[in-house]
Amino acid sequence: MLSIDLNSDLGEGFGAYRCGDDEAMLAVVTSANVACGLHAGDPEIMARAFTVARERGVAVGAHPGFPDLWGFGRRRIPFSTGEIERLVAYQVGAAAALAAYAGHRISYVKPHGALGNIAAEDRGVADAIARAVKAVDSGLAMLAIALTEQVAAGEAAGLAVHQEIFADRGYTDEGQLIARDKPGALITDADEAAGRMVEMVTEGVIITASGKRLPTQIHSICVHGDSDHAVATARRVRQALEQAGLRLSAFR
Amino acid sequence: MLSIDLNSDLGEGFGAYRCGDDEAMLAVVTSANVACGLHAGDPEIMARAFTVARERGVAVGAHPGFPDLWGFGRRRIPFSTGEIERLVAYQVGAAAALAAYAGHRISYVKPHGALGNIAAEDRGVADAIARAVKAVDSGLAMLAIALTEQVAAGEAAGLAVHQEIFADRGYTDEGQLIARDKPGALITDADEAAGRMVEMVTEGVIITASGKRLPTQIHSICVHGDSDHAVATARRVRQALEQAGLRLSAFR
Amino acid sequence: MLSIDLNSDLGEGFGAYRCGDDEAMLAVVTSANVACGLHAGDPEIMARAFTVARERGVAVGAHPGFPDLWGFGRRRIPFSTGEIERLVAYQVGAAAALAAYAGHRISYVKPHGALGNIAAEDRGVADAIARAVKAVDSGLAMLAIALTEQVAAGEAAGLAVHQEIFADRGYTDEGQLIARDKPGALITDADEAAGRMVEMVTEGVIITASGKRLPTQIHSICVHGDSDHAVATARRVRQALEQAGLRLSAFR
Amino acid sequence: MLSIDLNSDLGEGFGAYRCGDDEAMLAVVTSANVACGLHAGDPEIMARAFTVARERGVAVGAHPGFPDLWGFGRRRIPFSTGEIERLVAYQVGAAAALAAYAGHRISYVKPHGALGNIAAEDRGVADAIARAVKAVDSGLAMLAIALTEQVAAGEAAGLAVHQEIFADRGYTDEGQLIARDKPGALITDADEAAGRMVEMVTEGVIITASGKRLPTQIHSICVHGDSDHAVATARRVRQALEQAGLRLSAFR
Repeated sequence: MLSIDLNSDLGEGFGAYRCGDDEAMLAVVTSANVACGLHAGDPEIMARAFTVARERGVAVGAHPGFPDLWGFGRRRIPFSTGEIERLVAYQVGAAAALAAYAGHRISYVKPHGALGNIAAEDRGVADAIARAVKAVDSGLAMLAIALTEQVAAGEAAGLAVHQEIFADRGYTDEGQLIARDKPGALITDADEAAGRMVEMVTEGVIITASGKRLPTQIHSICVHGDSDHAVATARRVRQALEQAGLRLSAFR
Repeated sequence: MLSIDLNSDLGEGFGAYRCGDDEAMLAVVTSANVACGLHAGDPEIMARAFTVARERGVAVGAHPGFPDLWGFGRRRIPFSTGEIERLVAYQVGAAAALAAYAGHRISYVKPHGALGNIAAEDRGVADAIARAVKAVDSGLAMLAIALTEQVAAGEAAGLAVHQEIFADRGYTDEGQLIARDKPGALITDADEAAGRMVEMVTEGVIITASGKRLPTQIHSICVHGDSDHAVATARRVRQALEQAGLRLSAFR
Repeated sequence: MLSIDLNSDLGEGFGAYRCGDDEAMLAVVTSANVACGLHAGDPEIMARAFTVARERGVAVGAHPGFPDLWGFGRRRIPFSTGEIERLVAYQVGAAAALAAYAGHRISYVKPHGALGNIAAEDRGVADAIARAVKAVDSGLAMLAIALTEQVAAGEAAGLAVHQEIFADRGYTDEGQLIARDKPGALITDADEAAGRMVEMVTEGVIITASGKRLPTQIHSICVHGDSDHAVATARRVRQALEQAGLRLSAFR
Repeated sequence: MLSIDLNSDLGEGFGAYRCGDDEAMLAVVTSANVACGLHAGDPEIMARAFTVARERGVAVGAHPGFPDLWGFGRRRIPFSTGEIERLVAYQVGAAAALAAYAGHRISYVKPHGALGNIAAEDRGVADAIARAVKAVDSGLAMLAIALTEQVAAGEAAGLAVHQEIFADRGYTDEGQLIARDKPGALITDADEAAGRMVEMVTEGVIITASGKRLPTQIHSICVHGDSDHAVATARRVRQALEQAGLRLSAFR
């Protein structure tokens, strides 16, 4: 029986600020990427996310980003690859400790926002992230956007690498995400998103905007939870996958 | 042969800001308490401190403080004991990861500034810190101000506890540090500081301002490195201890 | 015709984080207290709040707080009165500049959260705030919780002082807000809140939990906008005041 | 009698962190560019710098930078021109308020670090800064690196613009600063720096590395104070200018 993971970014509030509905999403996903305090999240929010994830049997990973709370980690801050290594190591360690504090254990790392986008394109940055993860705990996996430099970097470093596709995004013929300001970037219809995911996962391909089918090892689907609409789409995707006979479970 | 540890706070700069002369102090001390990024320190400075400490054979510990860069961790910020637990866990994890990244390993935790002062007086806060340390890694020791609540809390939690005295501070008859605004609080003469340390360590007592001798398990001496004067005093203390036949080595 | 001001805290988001519905509240209130970037708010959010307030004819004030984004300005951070003076001056200046940038002009200052609560009780802190405001622009008014030390401090400094009551809070027989953890602290029924406000404003008294009527110069009513419920209550209060024949307008 | 201004960046510490010797530099310069709290500086440090500058008769300006304390404002953070406008307005207002609090008055604005470097090259960013300054107080002048886009932008906005040259930097034949990683970028000899400044100011030219002389309106010389060496160079430059019969005074 084919198995697939559903992951989402969680713990993205800060202090009194809320972002998304973590409790709702923890009832939908099988893996939670938890922000580590530099672009979002704080020790209270992190510990709470790890605790609830443990109670629900949801796997957890560190979700490090640039130190840019104001920009929510979405600005491409110019850091050297060495600085990125240390930034990632710092955040992975903080997340691992708070997971342990909550009786849970992080099993993977997924870079956030601008850091993730740069790691997808730039092998040097992707290598830096892989080196940091390996130095902290070589048993941690990388969760990487499918068909990107980050996949290659993680594998070259000897880490387990899991590839994710996005439920709500269109793909170019090269298998890359269509830029957000281009037509076809976003799949806004929940049923369409759900149907595409079932097709891609069961066939092991990324289906591009032009209809090409790119064979891909797909281990996880990324869904968003930052709005009521997003949570509804995530639920619809899960339901469709289950109806198609797929088993929802965290990549091991 | 009697053995004693010399510890100092290190890695207390931030970005372009320097604080003290880490390289100089790493040639004097046997244990370095490394700031964890919330009251001082950043991933670059932390990684550098851990790397040089490893090269010099100096033991390292996490030195967590309140999230108060502006106040350098010296303001008593009102946090609940639960919040303190999570704050400490976060910082210990970050430090452990950067130490691993640098090929080293933290062996203990010592709270910084206002957090350390509160932990000395307030058993609830001391317990919170001990719980956090134990949850993250029960093999970590606590480095605590001698004869304080933190010693009791660490021992009650089943952690190894090492007690420190201060080379440049006077003591009350209860064995507490004389408040900084009171006469006798500071020992400014390097020779006097050095002589006192030899006497206290070899006899296993804290000598108070009135001349009382309080039997104490002394595992470490805290020296400061935030000025040229402080570094010179630290060197003088080390020299005197060695001349007295004491072995300088990190508490195991 | 009796006139009364309705004020609310606005611009309390940060970066991607939203807090309350500023646009909705700017259609209800006559004065907006705009956060200044240290406990909440950022230059983008501030400029937007000032712009929309100008378009709607809503008066604006600076709403300075402690530099504690994580605590949303609700923690009582130990600052000296001198430090508080400089903190307030800094924030008032930043707000005045962004208001000017937006084509508007701040006319008053109201301290936020913990800073406001301390200023209500502690004359030294209240004096410090008044000194800061006067030094920056002696033409600025203070908006102060009625019958508190802040009123006395503002008047002693020669500033115009406007007193506010709270639509959703109960009062002790001394005219102070009932602490939030005590019975009667919160008025949760919108109609009750609205009715009380009409009675207090038209009679010029604060009505206490025991039914005492304390004669008070009431210039403004504070309403909250941090939830849908809060916005609805604010609208209900405004409607009731208008139906009672009161004119809603910013204190001069 | 020819008059020239000497300016330096001041107030660049943060909390317990010191940066340079403000008191020493305030005895050398005629204008002080005071950091505004986002890349360096805090309300305590700003108020102190404004107070001492007032006592010494030194003119003061706001020295806004990117919100990047960790990077000391030297990282090129990707902000839109609109965001830069609001960032600059915020900081100019905060500085103006603390100067007023200290009994002084800012008379100009000079962007710091990466923000200044971008404004030198990019007319859009230079225009944004000029718009912000003009909106806050059209009586403020711009202090701009000579022969850059910022000069043109300030003049186009109708602001008074003063051009500065650098005592310790070499110039290309286009009148731009030689990049720091290129040969000839830094003038490390104090006598050479001083001699060049006298020649450039008295002749009204920038002398390039190849010996070209570019006619330039020179209103100010920028000196640095972040090391003992830098302070000594600044003193040497001032002395040489005075010996050459130039009058040292803030641009009006």
